[in-house]
Amino acid sequence: MATVPAYAAPAAKAPLERTTIERRPVGEFDVLIDIKFAGICHSDIHQARDGWGEGIFPMVPGHEIAGIVTEVGSGVTKFAVGDRVGVGCMVDSCRTCENCLAGLEQYCLAGNIPTYNGRDKNGDPTYGGYSTHIVVDEKYTVRIPDGLSLDIAAPLLCAGITTYSPLRHWNVGPGKKVAVLGMGGLGHMGVKIAHALGAEVTVLSQSLRKKDDGLRLGADHYYATSDPKTFEELRGTFDVILSTVSAPLNLDAYLALLRTDGAFVNVGAPEDPVSVNLFSVIGGRKTLAGSGIGGIRETQEMLEFCAEHGLGAEIELIEASQINEAYERVLDSDVRYRFVIDTATI
Amino acid sequence: MATVPAYAAPAAKAPLERTTIERRPVGEFDVLIDIKFAGICHSDIHQARDGWGEGIFPMVPGHEIAGIVTEVGSGVTKFAVGDRVGVGCMVDSCRTCENCLAGLEQYCLAGNIPTYNGRDKNGDPTYGGYSTHIVVDEKYTVRIPDGLSLDIAAPLLCAGITTYSPLRHWNVGPGKKVAVLGMGGLGHMGVKIAHALGAEVTVLSQSLRKKDDGLRLGADHYYATSDPKTFEELRGTFDVILSTVSAPLNLDAYLALLRTDGAFVNVGAPEDPVSVNLFSVIGGRKTLAGSGIGGIRETQEMLEFCAEHGLGAEIELIEASQINEAYERVLDSDVRYRFVIDTATI
Repeated sequence: MATVPAYAAPAAKAPLERTTIERRPVGEFDVLIDIKFAGICHSDIHQARDGWGEGIFPMVPGHEIAGIVTEVGSGVTKFAVGDRVGVGCMVDSCRTCENCLAGLEQYCLAGNIPTYNGRDKNGDPTYGGYSTHIVVDEKYTVRIPDGLSLDIAAPLLCAGITTYSPLRHWNVGPGKKVAVLGMGGLGHMGVKIAHALGAEVTVLSQSLRKKDDGLRLGADHYYATSDPKTFEELRGTFDVILSTVSAPLNLDAYLALLRTDGAFVNVGAPEDPVSVNLFSVIGGRKTLAGSGIGGIRETQEMLEFCAEHGLGAEIELIEASQINEAYERVLDSDVRYRFVIDTATI
Repeated sequence: MATVPAYAAPAAKAPLERTTIERRPVGEFDVLIDIKFAGICHSDIHQARDGWGEGIFPMVPGHEIAGIVTEVGSGVTKFAVGDRVGVGCMVDSCRTCENCLAGLEQYCLAGNIPTYNGRDKNGDPTYGGYSTHIVVDEKYTVRIPDGLSLDIAAPLLCAGITTYSPLRHWNVGPGKKVAVLGMGGLGHMGVKIAHALGAEVTVLSQSLRKKDDGLRLGADHYYATSDPKTFEELRGTFDVILSTVSAPLNLDAYLALLRTDGAFVNVGAPEDPVSVNLFSVIGGRKTLAGSGIGGIRETQEMLEFCAEHGLGAEIELIEASQINEAYERVLDSDVRYRFVIDTATI
């Protein structure tokens, strides 16, 4: 056991504050990671404020973790001390169900073990990346390629894989038209990755406020969803719409922007149910789908893809003391495009 | 022009009554069909009662048409007098859009021309199969294979293709588990076709009232959706759920019955929007999809598949004078499983 500093929400909706937590001893297949950077994901805020139901408090959020291996267990074969590594949204899973065996640990039938706000196989709470160190099984640890700086790599562990996985699954590439709905932490990575995959990329954002950024990051077109003309002009256009927003949506209006056989893929997660007219999917054989992060193998593949294409997140680096303020700014959509905590300041 | 007898709804919600309508002269590429049988589809009732909005009255419903060619235009090459033919839900489309060119005329970007309750390219109303004759372009006419009786073939033109097309599109076959939701006109064909495709078939019906029929038609399992235990027992089971119901549904409960990457495909069409929690599709990368009938080429393929496997609809043959009574019975789910009008009685 090691006592390490961390930032935690002591209770639901309470501001995060500095504290200490216990990390487990480094087991046979574990790596001890000296965390360098931790991204702030919108879902950190949801969970710290208990938007998804039963939170485990105190809660140390953070599932966009980049750091350096400083110790390895005796059975570790993938990593050595000094390796640059990342940890995403999960730190374990059952390893035996058909999804785990297929590399789809995110859909583990027993439920994967989330990096924080979960319980490990001993029933102990998991604590995330807003901390200086973490102990993780090597199977749930990925390598960050040399070409990627750790700060801009950290957000790839959630925002990168959450957009990369569905873009690949729904065959986004050359000759395909994809819209990215929402130009935030997930959306800006969706734009970069879809562009690097060779697709024609359109951003659908509430306003044109971030248009210059969108075009710079790889979008070919940029439309405001607050303008009703957008929905006339783009009718029947897209093979895939990747929705990164968690605000309620007029799904029927967006489904009408799809081509025949098009897919509207949700990676954003509104808390309340949404309404849809099933005629919106029957006409044109459309699909309303969802996708959650990605498997470990695919996360590694995504990191290599990003390194190859020179893609990292656009970040604002902050000190740990600014976390609560950063949360407010995320809720105000006032971040370009991901806050990353310099964990040396914890 | 030819004046022919028909059964029509003179106005929305009015009972159907015997009348006469005009059929166009047989054009260069037309066939004149002596209609022998016309199925009664649930959507006939919706439309005759104006459930979907603006109906064109008088309305002659019927888009499950089987008959014999009695005259062909000078340019007709596919058919000769005496051929056994069928006409389904559409009688024309733009023929030039990418969907028409791909054999997906049902999704014609200009809108296909429905067999009834539509307007042809001259702006004249189209009249359906509750009649003794119809004139249709040969391109929108299909051949009924010799092995299929015309009476049990008629419902295949809508109920058959509406279930066959999505079952093929979502790769239902050996090794796949498919549930057919609803055991009515569409559902009973879904069961037969899915079974013939080699899948393991489960019927999900409100009650066990039609269980013996379901098992006889090819289902391996039969569950009542009125029993909450069904939803516990079948959690995470199906690759595909084909929903043929038009009643409102608890979509989240059904999405939970899908395996990872499973698809809930709607061919039934509730009139009101439905509610869905997007977490139901995000967990397990599921899709909520829809499908509308099928293209002409695929309709021909379906008929050949049905002939090869000895599949026709289970029907109750009625006289034209019983149409209004039959409508009431369809609304009461009191038909096993399709009413077919003997058009000689019109």
